[in-house]
Parts: sequence; C-alpha cells; structure tokens
Amino acid sequence: MSFQPVPLERETVETIIAEHGISVGTASIREVNRVVSTIEERTGLTFIRMEFGVPGLEPDSRAIEAEIEALSDRGLARVYAPFDGVPELKDAACDFVRAFLDLDLPAGSCIPTVGAMHGGFISMGIAGRRSAGRDTILFLDPGFPVNKLQCQVWGLENDSLDVYDFRGDELLAEIEKRFATGRIGGLLYSNPNNPSWICLKESELAGIGRLCSEYGVLAIEDLAYFGMDFRAEYGIPFEPPFQPTVAHHTDQYILLISSSKIFSYAGQRVALAVVSPALFTPEAESENLARYFGTNSPGYAFVHGGIYPTTAGVPEGPQYGLAAILRAAVSGDLIFTEPVREYGRRAEAMKAAFLDNGFRLVYDNDLGEPLADGFYFTVTYPGFDCAGLLEELVFYGISAIGLNTTGSRLTEGIRACVSLTPLERVPELRHRLEAFHRDHPV
Amino acid sequence: MSFQPVPLERETVETIIAEHGISVGTASIREVNRVVSTIEERTGLTFIRMEFGVPGLEPDSRAIEAEIEALSDRGLARVYAPFDGVPELKDAACDFVRAFLDLDLPAGSCIPTVGAMHGGFISMGIAGRRSAGRDTILFLDPGFPVNKLQCQVWGLENDSLDVYDFRGDELLAEIEKRFATGRIGGLLYSNPNNPSWICLKESELAGIGRLCSEYGVLAIEDLAYFGMDFRAEYGIPFEPPFQPTVAHHTDQYILLISSSKIFSYAGQRVALAVVSPALFTPEAESENLARYFGTNSPGYAFVHGGIYPTTAGVPEGPQYGLAAILRAAVSGDLIFTEPVREYGRRAEAMKAAFLDNGFRLVYDNDLGEPLADGFYFTVTYPGFDCAGLLEELVFYGISAIGLNTTGSRLTEGIRACVSLTPLERVPELRHRLEAFHRDHPV
Repeated sequence: MSFQPVPLERETVETIIAEHGISVGTASIREVNRVVSTIEERTGLTFIRMEFGVPGLEPDSRAIEAEIEALSDRGLARVYAPFDGVPELKDAACDFVRAFLDLDLPAGSCIPTVGAMHGGFISMGIAGRRSAGRDTILFLDPGFPVNKLQCQVWGLENDSLDVYDFRGDELLAEIEKRFATGRIGGLLYSNPNNPSWICLKESELAGIGRLCSEYGVLAIEDLAYFGMDFRAEYGIPFEPPFQPTVAHHTDQYILLISSSKIFSYAGQRVALAVVSPALFTPEAESENLARYFGTNSPGYAFVHGGIYPTTAGVPEGPQYGLAAILRAAVSGDLIFTEPVREYGRRAEAMKAAFLDNGFRLVYDNDLGEPLADGFYFTVTYPGFDCAGLLEELVFYGISAIGLNTTGSRLTEGIRACVSLTPLERVPELRHRLEAFHRDHPV
Repeated sequence: MSFQPVPLERETVETIIAEHGISVGTASIREVNRVVSTIEERTGLTFIRMEFGVPGLEPDSRAIEAEIEALSDRGLARVYAPFDGVPELKDAACDFVRAFLDLDLPAGSCIPTVGAMHGGFISMGIAGRRSAGRDTILFLDPGFPVNKLQCQVWGLENDSLDVYDFRGDELLAEIEKRFATGRIGGLLYSNPNNPSWICLKESELAGIGRLCSEYGVLAIEDLAYFGMDFRAEYGIPFEPPFQPTVAHHTDQYILLISSSKIFSYAGQRVALAVVSPALFTPEAESENLARYFGTNSPGYAFVHGGIYPTTAGVPEGPQYGLAAILRAAVSGDLIFTEPVREYGRRAEAMKAAFLDNGFRLVYDNDLGEPLADGFYFTVTYPGFDCAGLLEELVFYGISAIGLNTTGSRLTEGIRACVSLTPLERVPELRHRLEAFHRDHPV
C-alpha cells in the first residue's frame, strides 16, 4: 500500500495556521476544523479527522420513511404539537425504556425534547433551583463542555471532580463530600463517558443513586452512548443485561437519551428525557421552583415551565421518525447496538495503532478492567502537553481536540473520536503514527 | 335554517363543570377545553370554540413537499444541523425580509429557531442581562401570557403598561418614563397585537425605535401576525407598503417571525429570529453578558450562548419546509396574505354578530381609526365581568378566554379567536348571541 507522505512541510503548515490567526493547540473544534480544511486543500493531504464527535453512520431507513409518511398522511404541520410529545412517541419510548432499561414508567415520564441538549438544559434549570441554596451542579469530568455552558446560561454555579482521580469507593466518598456542603442541586455525568469512555460500574451507580436519594440531589444521567459499552450486549429487548442506569438505584433522576449517536439521527434534533415518576408526586414539590417555573413540582416544571416556554414542544415530523426506530428496536426487528458496533471495531484498531507507536491511553481502565472500545478514546505521548501534541500531530495529518477543553484536570492528552475514520483508513493512520514515532523517539 | 337550541339546561352544565372541579371563568385554556369537550359530548351541542389561538387553515403544500424531498434526497438526519440554520433557509429568510420588510440584512442576522417561542426566550435572556441593573422586561399589554412565563424562567423582572390606557404620544411618554428608571433591558410587544388586534401606528413605532436607541433598550418585536393587518396589502414582494416594524426606526431590535399563523405551519416548530446586524458589532458588546453566554456580543450570544445550549439548532427537515414557503412568497408565486384573509372575513362577520346583540368591542380603535379585522377581537357585555361573561356564554354554546388572563388590566371582556369558526357557522353564532341578548336584556 502506498500512503501520502508525512510530515508535511513545516513552513507551509505554519503559514496556513498563522493566516488563520489561531493556535491549533487551544482552538475550538470549529476553528481546528477550518484550519485543517485549508491545510487539506493546499497540501492535498487528507487528514485523519478525530476532532468532531459526530455520528458517522447512516440512520435506519425506517425513521426517514416514518417521517415522510407522517408528513404525507397526518397533516401534522397545521396544528400545534402537544408540548409533552405525540402519543405515538411517548408510548414507543415507554416500551423502549421497559425493553432496554427494565423500567416500568408511565407515558408522562417519557418526554421528547429538541435533542438531548434541550433536556439537559431544562434538567439543570430545575435541579439548580429546587432549593434556594443548592444552586450548584456537580459534574463528573471529563465531559461535554457545553453542559457547563448550559449551567452558566442559567446563572447556576458548577463544581466538578475528575474520574481520573476518583473511582469506586473513592468516587462515592468524594461525591458525598461535595453533597454534604449542601450546595449541590444536581449531579451530571455521561455514561459511557464522553470523552474518556470509562463506564461507571454497577456499584458506583448504586452508590450515586443512594447519595442522590439521601441528599435530595437530582441525578442527570446523559445516556448519549446508550448500549455502546460493547463489552456487553444491551440491544436484546426485554432480556438482561440492561443498560446500567442510576434509575435502578434512586427515584431522583432524569435520564437523557439522545438519538444522535445510538441511532445516527442527529440532524432532526429529537431525543427523550425520562423524568422519574417520583418527581411528579406532591412529595417532590419544593418551594423555590414556582417563582421560576410557575409550579413547585419538578416533573410538571419540566414540561410546563421548561419545554413550553423554550420551544413549545418538539417538531412533530421528527417525533414520528424516532418512534419508528424505537418500535423497531423494541420488536427486535432492529438490534440497534449492531450498526454502532462499527465504532468499537474502529476504536480497537485505532487504539492499537497509537499504542504500537509510543502513545499510551490516558483514561486506561475501569477499576482495573480494560476499557471498552467505543466512540472515543484518550491518548497521550511522552514529552508533550495537550497543545503541543495537537500542534505536532497536524504535521502528520491527524487532528483531534485537547483533553483540557473537556474539563479534564490533566494538562496532557487528547480526545480521539473514531466516527469519521472507517476501518480502511486505519493502515494510513498507522503509517502516520509510525512516522511521528520515528521523528519523536521516546 | 334550524339551529341547535340554547341555552343548555343549567343543571346539566353545572354538574359537568362541578365534576371537573374548576371555574370556567378563571380556568386555563386547556381546562376550558376539557370541560367544553365534556359538555359537547353529553349534551350533543357543538360549541363555537373561540378559546384557542390556533391556526385553522391548511399550510401550503410546497412546504410539505420540500420537507419530504429533503428527507428523501439530502440525507439530512445523519449529520448535525448547523446551529445557526441551514444556508437554504437563511438565504430565503434574507430575501423574505428584503421583500416584505424592506430590510437589507446579511444571512447571519436571519436565524431559524424552534418556533418563535424559542427566539423570544433567548431574546429576553439577552435583553435582561446586557447590563447588571437592567433586568426588567417591559411588556405592552395585553399580550401572550407565556411571554411573561419566559421572563420568569430566566429569573428576570417584568413590568407592563396597557395599550388600552396609552396610545400615540401618551404611549411614548409612558414608555420613556419606564425606560428612564434605568431598569428596563428589553421591550416586548406583538404587532398586530394578540389579543386586542390593535396595530401600532408608524408614528408609534418610530417613537419606540427612537427611545430604544436612546436608552439602549432591546426591542423584541413579535410579528406572529405578519401582514395580517388586512387594511393594507403587505403580501406583494418588493412593493410598498411593507409590514411596519420597529426595525425601520432603530438598530436595537430582534424580530420574531412565527410560521404558525401566517403560514399555518405550527406543528413543525420552525420560525425566524431577525437579529439586528448592529447587535453583532463591537459597539454592542456589554460586559454583563459573558458570564452567562460566554460572549459579550448580544448577536453571537443569540446563537452560541442561546440556540446552541438550548437545542443545538433547529431540526433540519422543517427548515427546508419553511424555506420553500418563503421562496414561494418572495417569487410572488404565493401571496401569503391571501389565505389568511379568511380570518379577516370571519372576524368581520363574527364581530357584527356580537355587536348586533348588545356586545361592544373592548379595544375598539387604532388612535381613532377603526380596528382591523383579524385573528382575534375583544368584546364585553354590560353587567358582566370577565369570569361572569365566560361562565354565562357556556350555556349558549360559546367558549372563549378572559382578557384578564392576557395581562390586560381590565376586569371585563373576553378574547375571541376566529380561527376555528368557519363563515358557515356564523349564522349559528348569531342565533346563540340573539338568545343570550334576549335572556340578558341591557
């Protein structure tokens, strides 16, 4: 096989970067994207693009067909959408949650949102305002940086701890220490974790659930990568193992189920928030909510004080699309974990290419167990900090983002997303990493 | 013609209302809806439903076809939508704004939102936070009650004045008095006005614009009923008269253009926010914004601190639907004001039926000029307050909402929406109002 030669000519690349007036090591994803596109154009080198956390697969055609059918036959555009979602999607969501999370919930708890971003935004607003003094959201870092922006938009405080430092009992002890300050209203984390791909153990989730119940903290669990810990098969309906979730251990939860990654349905912005039925009971009411949301009930606040004043519901067409995928998954016609296993295969091959060439994983194990292969992984190289490594890899046709931008307390390491690198390009990645390794002997 | 007899038997209706445990005079729209549906079911009387402000026409088929085409041919679901909108819609929006508002704006100023609700929510958050002390939104009442909830969700203060009390120079003097307190960050109003259907005169808009510029207050202009002051024809592209707007008089504005009423495209939740180019300039930056939105620029805050953390963009399919309608309007293929003129014809006929039977208009003129016929009108009957009138009309098969729920300071009068009453039912309405009038002699 013959590959395009690397490294690129330093002067050319440096000129292009200077023209953009940014530093690749500290730039935002979008800025990196622009500068890399210019480099590709002028040098003819096609990069291995690992900076974007975007889906790279085709969505199931049933979703598109269902949207088209809804548009053709239901006359759905002319009337307002119900704020809390169309019954078809709410019912399908209940079934999905029963089939894959083993949770028996009413339709009122399964609420469509305009992407999981929308559900996360509303959840934080509620969590941070249930009690006047508990206006801090605790984040398990590293994470998705926009969650912190959401917290900031509400005018709430944020606190965080890094799963690099704490796992298992130490994690729980540290969370309890923060909860004990009496300032924490919500705990937000993603599982599997973006970007480290660590997966919290059942014992950790049980502990988190217990602490949330005990301290009255709302667990906001981002399940954007639902079923994508491929060490287990979570995609068989009504059969264990079920996707691990804090909802098995507390009734103080809102789960966010994005359809962007697990169903490759990102562009139509339709997701689910699963709001614990306990949050609709009179016991859950808290006096600080009504002044913001017009109701003291966190459950009702989610719809009537959250969905309604932000978007007045989710566009109807996409709701029918998502409903079709969920129904296919529940019936077993679609094993939804199957297509996304491709990401696991890519991660395995790409990680090997890195590890064989002097790199090591940053977040490298789940309490002693090897990490799963999934959507992201994190690597570092001796002698480089975040920015330095990103800047140097550009000469080798590889782009990524620094762990420092994901809230990690570490000053080294980068996040690699596998979604835009098909398996057939991995030999090329390996060739480039070999060149990098040769040029930077450890 | 023979009509169903009214009034209904008092005892039957009172029993049904008691079962619902509400008072029709003070209930929410949704509660009224439920109780009226039960009364219809049990008595067999089909109500004249005037409580819902929902569209009652079919959307243009080009929109549906464009959505279907986008779903079939563009592979749009698999990738993330651009936060600031798909270029096709942004470009069509620029053309629309040029053709019907006579404004020459860059695509960056034309931003799709998830319904105008979304744009209004973000606009208020920005307006109320530009300067630390200016955290109050001033509303021209009566209005859309959810706007006040949006203000409350942000934790902002609200103030209001009633256009029943102030018009013309008095309106401007009163607005200036409020602006002069130094506490007002934004001014929100709808034009034509929901529910009174008054339309601000050019001289009033000019004065509002001047005051917004002078005091640095953001004008948030809700154009949900764009072109629906049918006394003029605003639907001919690139030809005067143009829809009156504050944007002709100040550069401190965000315009909200809903597609729900003017294009009967409510269910797909896609609207436009037109953000003044001046809000993207360095001069518009204000130091209080970054702590919330990550940028001091109100223009950039709208997208990167507003759209992004709330929904990460608008579902793509509906954007292509709206783009198709806008293009048809701009090309002159679709005179978009034509189908909605039906609302004007209904209003004219329904108002006459009320006025011939002892009712009078509450908001009854535009600075001396007769009010336009449009989507809503307001009426009252001697000897009844809001609640009393609503409760009594129920026995005559007529439902509406009280003006008091729309922020009006008046304690009498109701809002009537014409959208669910086709012209052929107006004789029936007249028959019922005659019976009401006969039973309640003035």
